[in-house]
Amino acid sequence: MKLLRHLTPAGPAYAALQPDGTAREISGDLLGDYQITDRVVSPGKLLAPVAPTNILAIGLNYRKHAAESGNEPPKTPVLFIKATSSVQHPGDPIELPVKLASHKVDYECELAVVIGRRCKNATRANALDFVLGYTCANDVSARDWQRGDLGGGQWCEAKSFDTFCPLGPVLVTKDEIPHPNALQIRTILNGETMQDWNTNDMVFDVPALIEFLSGSKTLLPGTVILTGTPHGVGFARRPPVWLKPGDEVVIEIEKIGRLSNPVIAEPV
Amino acid sequence: MKLLRHLTPAGPAYAALQPDGTAREISGDLLGDYQITDRVVSPGKLLAPVAPTNILAIGLNYRKHAAESGNEPPKTPVLFIKATSSVQHPGDPIELPVKLASHKVDYECELAVVIGRRCKNATRANALDFVLGYTCANDVSARDWQRGDLGGGQWCEAKSFDTFCPLGPVLVTKDEIPHPNALQIRTILNGETMQDWNTNDMVFDVPALIEFLSGSKTLLPGTVILTGTPHGVGFARRPPVWLKPGDEVVIEIEKIGRLSNPVIAEPV
Repeated sequence: MKLLRHLTPAGPAYAALQPDGTAREISGDLLGDYQITDRVVSPGKLLAPVAPTNILAIGLNYRKHAAESGNEPPKTPVLFIKATSSVQHPGDPIELPVKLASHKVDYECELAVVIGRRCKNATRANALDFVLGYTCANDVSARDWQRGDLGGGQWCEAKSFDTFCPLGPVLVTKDEIPHPNALQIRTILNGETMQDWNTNDMVFDVPALIEFLSGSKTLLPGTVILTGTPHGVGFARRPPVWLKPGDEVVIEIEKIGRLSNPVIAEPV
Repeated sequence: MKLLRHLTPAGPAYAALQPDGTAREISGDLLGDYQITDRVVSPGKLLAPVAPTNILAIGLNYRKHAAESGNEPPKTPVLFIKATSSVQHPGDPIELPVKLASHKVDYECELAVVIGRRCKNATRANALDFVLGYTCANDVSARDWQRGDLGGGQWCEAKSFDTFCPLGPVLVTKDEIPHPNALQIRTILNGETMQDWNTNDMVFDVPALIEFLSGSKTLLPGTVILTGTPHGVGFARRPPVWLKPGDEVVIEIEKIGRLSNPVIAEPV
């Protein structure tokens, strides 16, 4: 099932897309008990399909991306966290930071896992039981803050600027994606394909990540896990490619859809 | 004013401590409009004084601690983020991770700043306008995950285990602490003083941190900023000191109070 989150006069709400193209209102709590009603709704402005409680992100989780970054594949998952204030909606702009400036802003297509049920010390065998579904993410990254002196070696600042976590366009429930590690994933920048790979190349697959991230740690409902990006990012190109005002970045994942965002300079 | 958050039959609630030792019920939203009522309440179980929207933490922000860690003072603040699931209440145990084990768990006393109003691109001059108040934090850290191979150089995993962010015991509103960078701060482990310093030694003071953290980034109401720890942490001692079951850790900050937590092994 494909779920969308949209803006209604009463605030954000969920709807379920139907095979005939209509959308039906959802009542209740998507992270608790909910029901798909018979009421057909006309979706308002599309929102990121989840307001994350935490955004847990994994670095260097595709072999060829680890290599292009000058690293061996990691022995344990490399966790960093993006501030929840970095979420952006489908179609809304990625803002290049001006006040605390970055001049090296990069794209990263990622499969995002949305946790639906509270989870701690999951096993590989039961890990997917806690998943609500999947969406597309762009783990936008300021490389001057990530890789130079500026961030002190920690990646959180580089990854947490406002608008640096576009999510969407829809949340696809897990029954439609029984094998999250068999999906084509790509980034298309101004019509040119920049990343084009498959989630089967992850160093740690989705069940392994949930087992790790829930190890002695609670995954709250609404936790979003960004599972890493494949090779082809801007900083590894010769010459490097940085996002600039006027660009359009599309993240496309098989069975989910296309997440598209224009790029502008931060209005200050 | 000293505010406490406690458990009532209707759920978590705030109360204001009075000079006569009683507590008065607070109605409304502490992060919006609220009022101190005339109703005297008997506090229930004490909770962390805020349920953070994000926990933004600063590394190496005291000169002598940077030195004991083998680092120069950083040129820009070093941001890492703790998962909000790591919060622990006053008096409740710090759990040493067993399932995803750590054998090098350390304490860090920190002044925690609670943001009360949404804030972006604050200036040094107006930064404190966005502060609700201050509390004590223990930035508990698994050094084997932070400094060895395990975390891949990123600190988020080491700092995000469940119970690794005790907060409390009370939230002191900013009117009582006009100078947050003039407070004695200490850690007392099993009665022995391990850290004993003053917030005047921060490399980046509280207004500087708010200016930096809000630069091209939104600080949501309920954001907690951990402002770094002074020297005297366990890993820098010879021999090193690691927390063990049966320990009692107290974080004490002038004008705020004492945050005390016992230490146990994670029950699995």
